[in-house]
Amino acid sequence: MIVFGGIILRSMFAHIFVGFLLCMSIPAASAKVRHYRWTVTYELKAPDCYTKGVITINGRSPGPTIRAQQGDTIVVELKNGLMTENTAIHWHGIRQIGTPWSDGTEGITQCPILPGDTFVYKFVVDRPGTYIYHAHYGMQRSSGLYGSIQVSLPDGVQEPFAYDYDRSIILNDWWHRSAQELAAGLSAIKFVWVGEPQSILINGRGWYDCSLSANSACNNTDPQCSPSVITVVPGKTYRLRISSVSSLSAFNFEIEGHNMTIIEADGHYVEPFVVKNLNIYSGETYSVLVVADQDPSKNYWAAVNVVSRPTKNLRGLAIFNYYPTHPRLLPTAAPPAGPLWNDTKYRLNQSLEIKSHRNFTIPPPLSTEKLITLLNTQNKIEGRFRWAVNNVSFVLPHTPYLIALKHNLRHVFSQEAPPESYSVGKYDIFSKAENPNATESEALYKLEFNSTVDIVLQNANTMTANNSETHPWHLHGHDFWVLGFGEGVFDLAKDIGNLNLVDPIMKNTVPVHPYGWTAIRFVADNPGVWAFHCHIESHFYMGMGIVFESGVDRVGRLPRSIYGCGESARLRKP
Amino acid sequence: MIVFGGIILRSMFAHIFVGFLLCMSIPAASAKVRHYRWTVTYELKAPDCYTKGVITINGRSPGPTIRAQQGDTIVVELKNGLMTENTAIHWHGIRQIGTPWSDGTEGITQCPILPGDTFVYKFVVDRPGTYIYHAHYGMQRSSGLYGSIQVSLPDGVQEPFAYDYDRSIILNDWWHRSAQELAAGLSAIKFVWVGEPQSILINGRGWYDCSLSANSACNNTDPQCSPSVITVVPGKTYRLRISSVSSLSAFNFEIEGHNMTIIEADGHYVEPFVVKNLNIYSGETYSVLVVADQDPSKNYWAAVNVVSRPTKNLRGLAIFNYYPTHPRLLPTAAPPAGPLWNDTKYRLNQSLEIKSHRNFTIPPPLSTEKLITLLNTQNKIEGRFRWAVNNVSFVLPHTPYLIALKHNLRHVFSQEAPPESYSVGKYDIFSKAENPNATESEALYKLEFNSTVDIVLQNANTMTANNSETHPWHLHGHDFWVLGFGEGVFDLAKDIGNLNLVDPIMKNTVPVHPYGWTAIRFVADNPGVWAFHCHIESHFYMGMGIVFESGVDRVGRLPRSIYGCGESARLRKP
Repeated sequence: MIVFGGIILRSMFAHIFVGFLLCMSIPAASAKVRHYRWTVTYELKAPDCYTKGVITINGRSPGPTIRAQQGDTIVVELKNGLMTENTAIHWHGIRQIGTPWSDGTEGITQCPILPGDTFVYKFVVDRPGTYIYHAHYGMQRSSGLYGSIQVSLPDGVQEPFAYDYDRSIILNDWWHRSAQELAAGLSAIKFVWVGEPQSILINGRGWYDCSLSANSACNNTDPQCSPSVITVVPGKTYRLRISSVSSLSAFNFEIEGHNMTIIEADGHYVEPFVVKNLNIYSGETYSVLVVADQDPSKNYWAAVNVVSRPTKNLRGLAIFNYYPTHPRLLPTAAPPAGPLWNDTKYRLNQSLEIKSHRNFTIPPPLSTEKLITLLNTQNKIEGRFRWAVNNVSFVLPHTPYLIALKHNLRHVFSQEAPPESYSVGKYDIFSKAENPNATESEALYKLEFNSTVDIVLQNANTMTANNSETHPWHLHGHDFWVLGFGEGVFDLAKDIGNLNLVDPIMKNTVPVHPYGWTAIRFVADNPGVWAFHCHIESHFYMGMGIVFESGVDRVGRLPRSIYGCGESARLRKP
Repeated sequence: MIVFGGIILRSMFAHIFVGFLLCMSIPAASAKVRHYRWTVTYELKAPDCYTKGVITINGRSPGPTIRAQQGDTIVVELKNGLMTENTAIHWHGIRQIGTPWSDGTEGITQCPILPGDTFVYKFVVDRPGTYIYHAHYGMQRSSGLYGSIQVSLPDGVQEPFAYDYDRSIILNDWWHRSAQELAAGLSAIKFVWVGEPQSILINGRGWYDCSLSANSACNNTDPQCSPSVITVVPGKTYRLRISSVSSLSAFNFEIEGHNMTIIEADGHYVEPFVVKNLNIYSGETYSVLVVADQDPSKNYWAAVNVVSRPTKNLRGLAIFNYYPTHPRLLPTAAPPAGPLWNDTKYRLNQSLEIKSHRNFTIPPPLSTEKLITLLNTQNKIEGRFRWAVNNVSFVLPHTPYLIALKHNLRHVFSQEAPPESYSVGKYDIFSKAENPNATESEALYKLEFNSTVDIVLQNANTMTANNSETHPWHLHGHDFWVLGFGEGVFDLAKDIGNLNLVDPIMKNTVPVHPYGWTAIRFVADNPGVWAFHCHIESHFYMGMGIVFESGVDRVGRLPRSIYGCGESARLRKP
């Protein structure tokens, strides 16, 4: 393993080194086309003992795991077998270089897929790592339409850490109400908040105490809701690929009696560090190494505690099972309680600790060409609760941007440039806004192709006194460098100099902590139209997102299969 | 009022007489265009005290009542404001003469309307009477998307009965599970039947006993579920327009202490007769006259009892309120119990009693050109429960028939002619089928334009021993003459001579009683593609229907707004 000694060497050569690795590692001959045929249907399932309609792929939720090697082409023939609902799937963390129409974001890169239709997603997985996929239409993700993507290195290429086995752990939060009902409440004048989830699912399994609601749909003896089991062989080292598709909750993952070493975040190698537990926000993926070095005659709890929101003992539990101990033997100890839910400092510190692996750092450009500051606020528009960014609450256009831009249909979305900052210094992020009114718009941010862009995500108080929430922001089509996190208001003069330009991790999703800010940098080098939004399902539904366009003139002829809605209906003919 | 004395006169002249009346009554100058702007959304509502997601029109379920005069043109601009679901609305009982693309039957006459899209339904209400509208897509009708249509006579034209006021009563059955969940159960290999409804709604209001499920979504003090009130003035005569959009249940409607006179069925005048209570099946509409001649110091129950299926005290109740008695004063007597649920003979007899009003009889052709016998059976296909007609279980094509036929797209549905009869004499309708297997097909029945067609709907035993159910069959695009009902197997030799060719009522929906048959006749004089199906939502979903085509070559250019799904997507460009 080549180890660079100094910062300068890292900055200068790591990019070249990685590029060299990539060239080495994707010989065209070895790249495969991996073909999947999926049908999406509603099925009655009881993932947490309560039977409800779940959106499944080939009858399963989570859906099938996509396993591929770097450089492979993934082809998913997605048949919509729903009765009345359309659908679309986003391949979260896959940049879709050259295939922006396969990003799966309804209203942005494609029209929804109608019941009975089959849509073909085709894209290259150009980077190794752990990714996820999920519905990107309405709130269908929270109905169960999600799964894992694992991209391995080409044969013979080594990772900068050693392990014996690989295990996937996908986390989710779960409601008994349908997504239609949750969304209806969010949109109502008499606002009905979705509330805390009924349960936390680990690999699609959770547990709801049926005695809490005398409902025949709930059965605590249903084998569907027996806990997930992660079986390990004593003495072996495990790579746990942990991802979260939660609709609301921030999680803390901990295995009783076992530390873990964080080694990957959103497909990028992390400079390894040991933690007792891992904070993971919706849309994030991590790999951690865990050594099965404890008493093998027992089992241990793998606990997913909810952080950042006050929930009453809401927790997901799986069994960390030592072979040959029986996988159903319950651990005797109390499950790990995790950190205090409101210990923001603890979470901020872990965020700060995640740096790029010293041998795999891709140095960021040392300066930026544009700085966009995005103030995240809770607002009211025409009596309805909304979220807004710089006082603009995002709404999707009826004709997808990608099609509208290629056909120069300027009337289908607002051509006004959205605000690139807010009244810094005048707005008090620590208090409820004096005037909570905002406006709605589907306007997008145009970025010069190949330009370097900095974003400062600025958190604030919600419409509830002394409350600020965690928002995990996810960027489509790009990875960004995480340059810094801070408390309070981002101060250009003071904070800009303290950003990490040396070994920032690259990610596609990053939390903005309560009353804090997060600074990221990316190069707008991927032609297309890309969403950037809070990954909390209801927050995005309520307007907490924006869209970037760059280099759309470089995008080739769009596949006609993405057409069919709004103004694009009449353009579909081949 | 002209009264014809004899049968021959009626047969010969009534048609001319009615035609004359029509000509008289629709002076072109008085016909209006009635414009409606509707938005369909999910709203959280508690029609029976239990809050669930309800599909509403302009926030209401039932939706707004369409009130028009004979000859008016109705224009409904229907905006789909659902998050992820498409929609389509059928105007039940409106024949859509000249506008077959406005029938609102997804997969048959149009593609579904996408979220965000506005579809314009435009049609003439050419006959006076009581009609309904409801979703005809998936099982959205059972989610609350329905309402009433009242078409009055032109000014100055008299009806053959007198009344002081008019009241609408629309009946429905109601489940707490979503339509998605109900349908998922019906489609599952491990079949989950929808079960009996949780409540019966009268004008959108019912009552579910919240103590049956300790669920915070249920609140028996919610004013939304206070009973409907029908207020009457002592001594006055009321025309009650009663319709049923139930998804499963057959109803019996009775007002405590009041007889009623049946005067209208599905838009046709009935030779008046007095009943204690009215049996009404899903898709039917009736008008009855009720005189407010009881003690006005009390209120009375209007009860909707479920018949034909064993339900435990399942009943809908409204208050028949005598002004100025307080509308919330509960009646003191026990609600009418209705007839025994399994008294098939009682229901058969009432069906037989409904004849055309002697002055308004449109005589049927005295002979037929085609006889189609349709055996209704419960079957299994690839492990799933289905319903079938002559052993063929109906599935909708992915490209609507109307578009496929106009563009000669023969590959989008089976071109094989579906069976016009079953093995009469060999099939034992009184027993479970020895071989329950059936096949699925989207093939349609081609009828020669302007030909006279007889249909015998033959009921049979289900897959449960000693069980046969009631199936209300609804024909789109036409009214038919109800020529007869019988018990057991329809015997061509014996029964054909006993059909009523003298004064049969015309209807668009008719029940087929358990172990019985129903014979109808119609003239295929409306160019288009028309569904004919059991109006029980889950039965149609499970394949109990067929489709007729006739005279499609006479249909003009189709509006491009009905295109967009399946093969029609590429044909949409204007």
